[in-house]
Amino acid sequence: MLPREAGQLARLAESFRSTVGKLMPAAIARRRFWAEFFSGSVAANTFAGETQKALTEAHRLLNSKQDKRGYVWLVGAGPGAEDLLTLRAQRVLQEADVIFYDALVPDEVVSMGRRDATRINVGKRKGAHTSTQTQINQLLVAAAKSGKRVVRLKAGDPMVFGRAGEEILALREHGVDFEVVPGVTAAFAAAASAQIPLTLRGVASSLVFATGHDQHGDTLPDWAEMALNGATTAVYMGRSVAGKVAALLVSAGMDLSTPVMAIENAAQTKERNFAGTLQDLCDFEHHDSVNGPTLIVIGKAVAHADQSRSLPLSPYKNTSLPAVVAA
Amino acid sequence: MLPREAGQLARLAESFRSTVGKLMPAAIARRRFWAEFFSGSVAANTFAGETQKALTEAHRLLNSKQDKRGYVWLVGAGPGAEDLLTLRAQRVLQEADVIFYDALVPDEVVSMGRRDATRINVGKRKGAHTSTQTQINQLLVAAAKSGKRVVRLKAGDPMVFGRAGEEILALREHGVDFEVVPGVTAAFAAAASAQIPLTLRGVASSLVFATGHDQHGDTLPDWAEMALNGATTAVYMGRSVAGKVAALLVSAGMDLSTPVMAIENAAQTKERNFAGTLQDLCDFEHHDSVNGPTLIVIGKAVAHADQSRSLPLSPYKNTSLPAVVAA
Repeated sequence: MLPREAGQLARLAESFRSTVGKLMPAAIARRRFWAEFFSGSVAANTFAGETQKALTEAHRLLNSKQDKRGYVWLVGAGPGAEDLLTLRAQRVLQEADVIFYDALVPDEVVSMGRRDATRINVGKRKGAHTSTQTQINQLLVAAAKSGKRVVRLKAGDPMVFGRAGEEILALREHGVDFEVVPGVTAAFAAAASAQIPLTLRGVASSLVFATGHDQHGDTLPDWAEMALNGATTAVYMGRSVAGKVAALLVSAGMDLSTPVMAIENAAQTKERNFAGTLQDLCDFEHHDSVNGPTLIVIGKAVAHADQSRSLPLSPYKNTSLPAVVAA
Repeated sequence: MLPREAGQLARLAESFRSTVGKLMPAAIARRRFWAEFFSGSVAANTFAGETQKALTEAHRLLNSKQDKRGYVWLVGAGPGAEDLLTLRAQRVLQEADVIFYDALVPDEVVSMGRRDATRINVGKRKGAHTSTQTQINQLLVAAAKSGKRVVRLKAGDPMVFGRAGEEILALREHGVDFEVVPGVTAAFAAAASAQIPLTLRGVASSLVFATGHDQHGDTLPDWAEMALNGATTAVYMGRSVAGKVAALLVSAGMDLSTPVMAIENAAQTKERNFAGTLQDLCDFEHHDSVNGPTLIVIGKAVAHADQSRSLPLSPYKNTSLPAVVAA
């Protein structure tokens, strides 16, 4: 900083202070204004000796802030570990006035926003009711319409089983500007920690993401054929449907010895993983202690995972590994 | 810090300084030693008044560092934008003595390592030869065996089309300690920037990752059935096989009007995206100007993308959008 121009910039700032205070009652808005004032074209022109241009730019900045529209970022919070967030997600969290987050997003990530940001849990509101998707859409639109900078935090990646599509539709309908920040999905976190190569030359050349939420019927899932043909299959939220899925795959001809791993709370400190075969998967839901979100990975590539820290997939088997269920 | 114990810790450090200097000629190793000295059990015991234990711990630390074994991180570098790296990836890059990277990892990410780290491009060595996978495995093992802390940077996520499985096998065989750091895959980056909901209630409930490298035969790809049933399909490195894949899907009965997008250089500043139908996909490979890595996304959910910034998927169509191919 050159001392003389710095003094000029400070005097220019002083001359705007009272107006800014009146037009922007919210401390957040004022902070944003001054951050731009001191880093943007006002400062640049002052330091270039262009005093008149700097004044014009300062007025332009003030006007642009007055009709400031809100903005929404649909952000992938990653699988759970706070350091598996992207740098971009970290940055936009710092910009947010309001953070709407799902129940599955860990507190450590939610707390990465600014201290003065409003945080709203739309997974379990007031510890009791769960917001409907329509309510969430309305909350996002309303917050943005009131000029807020909004982060919508979703576990993993927003575009995969995250219902971002419905929120995008609502934001578009109401003319709200937004962008999507991708994230690390649970399957990749699980693969990293259990060392499961999701694709592997000569073993598995494709990968399927499915969700347990669709597997309650008695018909074969649409991915069964690919799984039978050797694709690695990752079933999100798979615990409660594990038995049904296993039975259907067996009836369709999949080998009972096909390797399977189940990863509970992937990437979190309380992560546990379970290893076994398709046959064991039939019993997996009898693990009473498994109640975190669980990803099930099925396929020959799973045989190449590190299963040394795994518990048995079937609670009735393999007593050489630590017991999972209390007797 | 309590002044008295801090003084004790400083004196203990001083008494080790000369030995540490002799045993660890590399500044990196010394820095690592002192970081642990001042943050670990040596400091803890000193501050707890356990002077003798602190001394023992200091000797133990010194011994452990002398036979310090190397370590490898297989790191997902994300899709290309430097801020789509995870915080964990950024941290381990800072710890690496050696960074092996693929051709597809952008310079901005490679440069995030320490200034004094050795950087080795194993995608295109010396601008001409490409290392074979076996050579890369050997390089990783050799670097780790010589005590180096090694980062192996792979575009996207290491476990998806990244051949991490083969590197993991080699590292295990040679008893090298390693871990995998997951990343954001190109499909998620593409979905974020083109606003493609990869899964969407009532439209697409599952997602397939396939690679163009396997699609050179005349048989239907193993994921064709899923694509026909409505799953969203992301084909990595899909440009050169686009026509073949489209023809096979059409012959299998997929509707010619099925929406398709192609994203070149997803998440990078030179990203371009192309939108059209399965019919247009037949012509896509005639875009002579498309030569970056290209992801093709096929499925009904693609209709919900933002196609306002898209070029036509077929170079022979839709002159209302900006021309792509120079005449």
